[in-house]
Amino acid sequence: MRPVQVGLIGFGTVGSGVVRLLLEHAERFQRRLGAPLVLKKVADIDLDRPRPVAVAPALLTQNVQEILADPEIDIVVELIGGVTDAYELVMTALERGKHVVTANKALLAHHGNEVFQKASQVGVEIGFEASVCGGIPLILALRQGLAANAISELFGILNGTSNYILTKMSSEGASFEVALKEAQEKGFAEADPTLDVEGIDAAHKLAILMALAYGTRIDFPAIHIEGITRLKPIDIQFAREFGYQIKLLAITRDDGQRVEARVHPTMLPLDHIMASVSGVQNAVYITGDAVGPVLLYGRGAGMMPTASAVAADLIDLAYKISHGVPGRVPPLGVNDAAQNRRLVKPLAEIVTNYYIRFAARDRPGVLSKISGILAKYEISIAAVIQKGREIRSSVPVVMITHEAREAHIQQALAEIQQLDIITEQAILIRIEDPNLDAAQI
Amino acid sequence: MRPVQVGLIGFGTVGSGVVRLLLEHAERFQRRLGAPLVLKKVADIDLDRPRPVAVAPALLTQNVQEILADPEIDIVVELIGGVTDAYELVMTALERGKHVVTANKALLAHHGNEVFQKASQVGVEIGFEASVCGGIPLILALRQGLAANAISELFGILNGTSNYILTKMSSEGASFEVALKEAQEKGFAEADPTLDVEGIDAAHKLAILMALAYGTRIDFPAIHIEGITRLKPIDIQFAREFGYQIKLLAITRDDGQRVEARVHPTMLPLDHIMASVSGVQNAVYITGDAVGPVLLYGRGAGMMPTASAVAADLIDLAYKISHGVPGRVPPLGVNDAAQNRRLVKPLAEIVTNYYIRFAARDRPGVLSKISGILAKYEISIAAVIQKGREIRSSVPVVMITHEAREAHIQQALAEIQQLDIITEQAILIRIEDPNLDAAQI
Repeated sequence: MRPVQVGLIGFGTVGSGVVRLLLEHAERFQRRLGAPLVLKKVADIDLDRPRPVAVAPALLTQNVQEILADPEIDIVVELIGGVTDAYELVMTALERGKHVVTANKALLAHHGNEVFQKASQVGVEIGFEASVCGGIPLILALRQGLAANAISELFGILNGTSNYILTKMSSEGASFEVALKEAQEKGFAEADPTLDVEGIDAAHKLAILMALAYGTRIDFPAIHIEGITRLKPIDIQFAREFGYQIKLLAITRDDGQRVEARVHPTMLPLDHIMASVSGVQNAVYITGDAVGPVLLYGRGAGMMPTASAVAADLIDLAYKISHGVPGRVPPLGVNDAAQNRRLVKPLAEIVTNYYIRFAARDRPGVLSKISGILAKYEISIAAVIQKGREIRSSVPVVMITHEAREAHIQQALAEIQQLDIITEQAILIRIEDPNLDAAQI
Repeated sequence: MRPVQVGLIGFGTVGSGVVRLLLEHAERFQRRLGAPLVLKKVADIDLDRPRPVAVAPALLTQNVQEILADPEIDIVVELIGGVTDAYELVMTALERGKHVVTANKALLAHHGNEVFQKASQVGVEIGFEASVCGGIPLILALRQGLAANAISELFGILNGTSNYILTKMSSEGASFEVALKEAQEKGFAEADPTLDVEGIDAAHKLAILMALAYGTRIDFPAIHIEGITRLKPIDIQFAREFGYQIKLLAITRDDGQRVEARVHPTMLPLDHIMASVSGVQNAVYITGDAVGPVLLYGRGAGMMPTASAVAADLIDLAYKISHGVPGRVPPLGVNDAAQNRRLVKPLAEIVTNYYIRFAARDRPGVLSKISGILAKYEISIAAVIQKGREIRSSVPVVMITHEAREAHIQQALAEIQQLDIITEQAILIRIEDPNLDAAQI
């Protein structure tokens, strides 16, 4: 069988990991494939930077055309990140009949539909296991392993940086700022952490997972996104008192008609298996109608875990290429023509439980005024904690609601905010606890 | 694209689940495939038994030849269980050029090598995702998702029945007998629970997982197997005092030369994610050299979870059949010719930490005599609990050892057993705790 040739674009951290796997484990891969998987070229703008793996100078180039225009290269690995340049590069590779492997979730969240359509048109494949949760074989699980299931619900801890920060805030009572600084010092957060801590990276990944789970088009703009920057240690403490852990959760749920799509800090019961996913770990909890709940857990980022996923796609593609059968599996596991169009339910229409913390002046009647407005909007209260500990001359009034409609909650909060006893913007955190309304809290 | 036709043999619990998926979700599957996946025939000896799903009488037969001899049937699903008849049936189906999907771990543990070889010879595929941990996409993860990794270690909670019993023993202090009875009443254990509680079922699954993890032949007889029938609540309590949970763990580990292969009750640190896998859940914790540790968790048995895995294999195979490209992926992901031959390390040569409970007369000098013999065999003690609570006129002396060689432990125990102060057979439980020898206990 003929060797399969790979051109890699983007010789950064993950690129170095992929190069290491291809060079150091060539024998292992060949044993699986029955054919050599050859790294033919590595392109990067900056070739002078020191890297953790040595590459023969003849393999290196600063000119991506040496990869894109090389007819012998079967697979282009795109690891430059970002959206604009990566889009152009991937589309060019596909147009030239090359298979593509990418770890670029931003690219797929924003341009996945065009990219996938182009791949199908040309009859090549696009591997993107590395784009969501690094080495965890999640794309494969959704596309093949759980293919017989209608996915009713998916919870994801999809961003290691924010999970690390939340774990620090939770275990040490650290503020967001202190925990972020520590994450940056340890290399778990970037100098500009916006994409991670604002929930955008998690939403990119959720967009891809939803497309796979429902066999539908990618619809990134429909996702409601909130990050963790406004979380305070006091809310993590109150959550604990109610038996909850706060996680930045990516949630999608199918009500049979429309689907929910949201990324926000979420309270989970302490005994939920997702509540114990700590540090930089990622996990996805998927409920299928036949299989029930399934959890996949592991390192979602980093040089070698991500390289593991890129290499898995390379091996799978190389197997098909060397056997002459690539290009037959549509990227989302469903032919374009058969794609479902699933509408996303507006956030205002979701129904869930809420944690709300008001900051109010310490006067008699506060609770009665707040609860009166909540009642007007048909929001009933499952539990209240009203404590005497003053924070900036106000006291926290903390509530857990029974199931309520988001629109009602927002209207009630706006009205409560007008009361002269309220001193600060209320903090609202959504809860995922199927037992809350079933049992007495 | 032409329809793909399926013949199902064994209309029991899992068979009913598969029939339900194929009948009720035909539209969903066709959308994925672009071609109908048709249930053409269902064979079972007993057609009178009531079943949770209705099948048109014309589809039913008591004669398996109606499936095996039907040239239109592409895929035979074997769900009769057992070894001898299933072997004959699967081999006949393969010889007639039919693809096979099976949930039969006993068959594969005992005859997997012949079955896989036959499939490769004939050029058909054999799907066996359902044979290990039901709907958890584990075979797929090992064969494809983690294909770039050398697997260094795999821990599995592979048997829901014994995990349910252990969970009951742990949470309620129940004896094995009481917990087993409850499991039987709830339908989680069979009338004859031997395969489950003696660790044999878990070992069948470990044999299959090892073949996938190492790309080697199945070697079931090399696995050391101990069940949970001898476990006492007192050991679960002592384990807790040392910070451990007892699980029936299937363990394999690659030392670079040989591999370990064992199923036995194992103490795991309480904060290990596998320690929190409770009830009938299954989980597998896999460490790859690139990806690090990955966990897959879910329902490992039952009608619909297992049917989910059978149907995933059917969809994958049907996709390949309708596109004209089946039979190209070897069952273990590695061509027969390229298979590694990995030798299993004899249990006597493994090195690990041990929990040992002696029952001794309550006399001075007991500890000194026992520890003297342990020292002779170079076994050093990390912790001891010696309590005054008498059980049948003897007291328990409980020890945790530093890393020691199994052969030394067995020799020491045999010698200690001869002491007149020892009243019962010692209880030995192996520990998996990477921090035990690193830190002070």
